[in-house]
Amino acid sequence: MPILNRQITLAARPEGMPQESDFRLVERPTLPLRPGTFLVRTEFFSVDPYMRMRIREESYAQPTNIGDVMPGRAVGRVIESKHPEYHPGDAVAGEWGWQEYAVSDGKGTRRVEESLAPISTALGVLGMPGMTAYFGLLEIGRPKAGETVFISGAAGAVGSLVGQIARIQGCRAFGSAGSDEKVAYLTQELRFDGAFNYKEVRDYTAKLEELCPGGLDLYYDNVGGPVSDAAFECINVGARIVVCGQISQYNNRTMARGPRLLWRLVVQQARAEGFMVHQFADRFPEGLRQMAAWIREGKISYRETITDGIQNAPKAFIGLFTGQNIGKQLVRVAKG
Amino acid sequence: MPILNRQITLAARPEGMPQESDFRLVERPTLPLRPGTFLVRTEFFSVDPYMRMRIREESYAQPTNIGDVMPGRAVGRVIESKHPEYHPGDAVAGEWGWQEYAVSDGKGTRRVEESLAPISTALGVLGMPGMTAYFGLLEIGRPKAGETVFISGAAGAVGSLVGQIARIQGCRAFGSAGSDEKVAYLTQELRFDGAFNYKEVRDYTAKLEELCPGGLDLYYDNVGGPVSDAAFECINVGARIVVCGQISQYNNRTMARGPRLLWRLVVQQARAEGFMVHQFADRFPEGLRQMAAWIREGKISYRETITDGIQNAPKAFIGLFTGQNIGKQLVRVAKG
Repeated sequence: MPILNRQITLAARPEGMPQESDFRLVERPTLPLRPGTFLVRTEFFSVDPYMRMRIREESYAQPTNIGDVMPGRAVGRVIESKHPEYHPGDAVAGEWGWQEYAVSDGKGTRRVEESLAPISTALGVLGMPGMTAYFGLLEIGRPKAGETVFISGAAGAVGSLVGQIARIQGCRAFGSAGSDEKVAYLTQELRFDGAFNYKEVRDYTAKLEELCPGGLDLYYDNVGGPVSDAAFECINVGARIVVCGQISQYNNRTMARGPRLLWRLVVQQARAEGFMVHQFADRFPEGLRQMAAWIREGKISYRETITDGIQNAPKAFIGLFTGQNIGKQLVRVAKG
Repeated sequence: MPILNRQITLAARPEGMPQESDFRLVERPTLPLRPGTFLVRTEFFSVDPYMRMRIREESYAQPTNIGDVMPGRAVGRVIESKHPEYHPGDAVAGEWGWQEYAVSDGKGTRRVEESLAPISTALGVLGMPGMTAYFGLLEIGRPKAGETVFISGAAGAVGSLVGQIARIQGCRAFGSAGSDEKVAYLTQELRFDGAFNYKEVRDYTAKLEELCPGGLDLYYDNVGGPVSDAAFECINVGARIVVCGQISQYNNRTMARGPRLLWRLVVQQARAEGFMVHQFADRFPEGLRQMAAWIREGKISYRETITDGIQNAPKAFIGLFTGQNIGKQLVRVAKG
């Protein structure tokens, strides 16, 4: 007998900041299992800033259509299987999006090692955000011991890990975030060398010069906009700018304008490089092993902001853009 | 008996576009030679866009002060020497700026190999612009055979060489320039695969899409501004943007604004990197050897735009920003 599956679909393309009315909760029966497939019950799914770009009409990847289930990574447990390699009770992660149940043939799905950490971490520190922090910082940014690293969006799922990895590499880590609570989290819990609340600071360049009088050797950019403009002003000769995300810009209706910054790259002989985490997909096993080891050794800590109930997913997603989350924002669908 | 030396000094810091009144022709006797020095008579000196940045109050390097001789590279011939290694008649290149004579102790000066090419080329294809094209394209841009390379300011001293080196590497080369004559020079004489006159085209993005329907793998940026904005729109996945110069921006009174482009680096997993040619100073001998070989083999051709008379140097300099020159702009002070 089919199970009733609740899903969040895209009801309308957001104009500017997404609204809850841009999403719809629908109920559909799950499809019957065919040989070679299994049914998974979602425990957590992820809401991420990049999804804002995927639901635009023109996206960098295949855009989500109106009526489609919202895309995204999820973790859950196999509850029924006609697949030879997956068995009821197995914890799995995949890309089945914002829904309570999914039928999978195993493609794009991986088994989650439950002995390492709670399975929710497969969406965070031991998942895409963790790999984004790890490879973005180490491979694109190439930090060297003694360097000064500044991270915007530093209290988010990626930024909070970048700063800790930078410190493991012997760098000094500084960050910007959107509340005093986040700043305290960075400096007290994650032992960043300094941080500021960008909502309370007017002159970001002056603030960076005060925090980092020796300038920035590496800037890990999650936000774009005026904080990035200031970081460009403060880069040292030979600096690297890791362009990971531009969350401050995702809800713009038109191409935003700002100061022309390319000249800064010339005079500082600096490099700005964008990346997508899937570039490093063949090295994820290495990255996951290292991140898990650092967690075990107490060198990396992480936080999750959990919103309960699939019906609250749009709110959790919108909250990413108003800065509601510390660390990884998850939606909990069912208790494990 | 001292020789009367004519020099061009900085009379005032230009506001916006430089004016001839920002410069002054002065006459001063040359200093007597001390042991270990020699007197050189200038044959050519160089005017370059970067000098506009050096005469600002805040420059990336020690700014030129009011009353100082204008900085810049020059070539000439030793006419008197108390230096053991330089003899009358030797052709030398150095950084003695906009003046008819200079006394040098040999520091920052190099002997010019006259058998290779006319000595004026020590300021162009076999000098700083040549090395800027060679190392900027090959080391920062890393072109691969079959790739599409777009060069802004393509008919200038650097750009005209970049396109030819790109073709030697098996790339397709496209350029923008500021007159139909320059476009004809690029496509007919230098065998670029395509070019356009940016003063006649309104929609640079549409033009680039028409010329390069497969997108840009490498963008060598000499100009900045709207042409660069369009190039960013057209980059392919994995593209490299070599940020060499931003001539369209040098006369701005305040930081210019334009579209925020960092997101393009993310979605295209692309890199924008600035450089200064002195980064590669220890490899200049290799670069000069290769450029000289390509000239001999007929694979690289070059053009010089020569302005006669030191008194006309300010006009030649200003002409760089209005696009008067094709290839390397030189000022001829004395016939060799």
